[in-house]
Amino acid sequence: MLPYNIHHVAIAVNDLDASIASFAEKYRLEVLSRERIEEQGVEEAMIACGGSHIQLLQPLDAMSPVGRFLSRNGEGMHHIAFAVVDIEEALDHLKTVGVELIDESPRIGGGGHKIAFVHPKDLAGTLFELVEISNG
Amino acid sequence: MLPYNIHHVAIAVNDLDASIASFAEKYRLEVLSRERIEEQGVEEAMIACGGSHIQLLQPLDAMSPVGRFLSRNGEGMHHIAFAVVDIEEALDHLKTVGVELIDESPRIGGGGHKIAFVHPKDLAGTLFELVEISNG
Repeated sequence: MLPYNIHHVAIAVNDLDASIASFAEKYRLEVLSRERIEEQGVEEAMIACGGSHIQLLQPLDAMSPVGRFLSRNGEGMHHIAFAVVDIEEALDHLKTVGVELIDESPRIGGGGHKIAFVHPKDLAGTLFELVEISNG
Repeated sequence: MLPYNIHHVAIAVNDLDASIASFAEKYRLEVLSRERIEEQGVEEAMIACGGSHIQLLQPLDAMSPVGRFLSRNGEGMHHIAFAVVDIEEALDHLKTVGVELIDESPRIGGGGHKIAFVHPKDLAGTLFELVEISNG
């Protein structure tokens, strides 16, 4: 009902092309999809790794959330996304147990999936995302 | 030959018991194993999530690497571990392509697995670990 897999681990990067090339050369991990998401102010690349993914995020501008993350921290891990079958049900449960949500209801993210973010203050200083993936 | 899965995503935490309880309550994710690793100065818990894991790391003392990470950054994501079938072969490849390694040869980590760390300066500001898992 709640997370059945780690869908992706996101990393903020300055140069998407250079990072994609490095993952291919060093780890032989290949890009599965690439997408510009204006609403989130990012260009993202999904790199397949077994049943999960590394998501690379390059900001479209310095004032976007990922742009500000890079200014503060430099390149590095940004969030962990859990795959869920039913995001509304997952959000209802999280509200019931008092979790602080960034998104009270789902919005549309990369790949057209329903997504929602949980506040990093809630647990282990970590920004968690839920991604509804109906069939794994 | 190189990574075939994301074995775990590690998160540094101040209170292992409290974090384990929160993952169970909030995300219904359960602890698979728990281990004190003196050599790395951590107590770790592996939380199963589909084909991957969340690894929680609590430092045994403030001067250990994870203790210093917590002092600098607070709780948060610490590293990404890739599962590999043959860690010596993977390290040979990474040396060939000029990757900066923390561990030039494998050492023994949690669960008795051979592990090695790659320097976070190498790629995307991210500390990567290789874990040899022979059968997935």
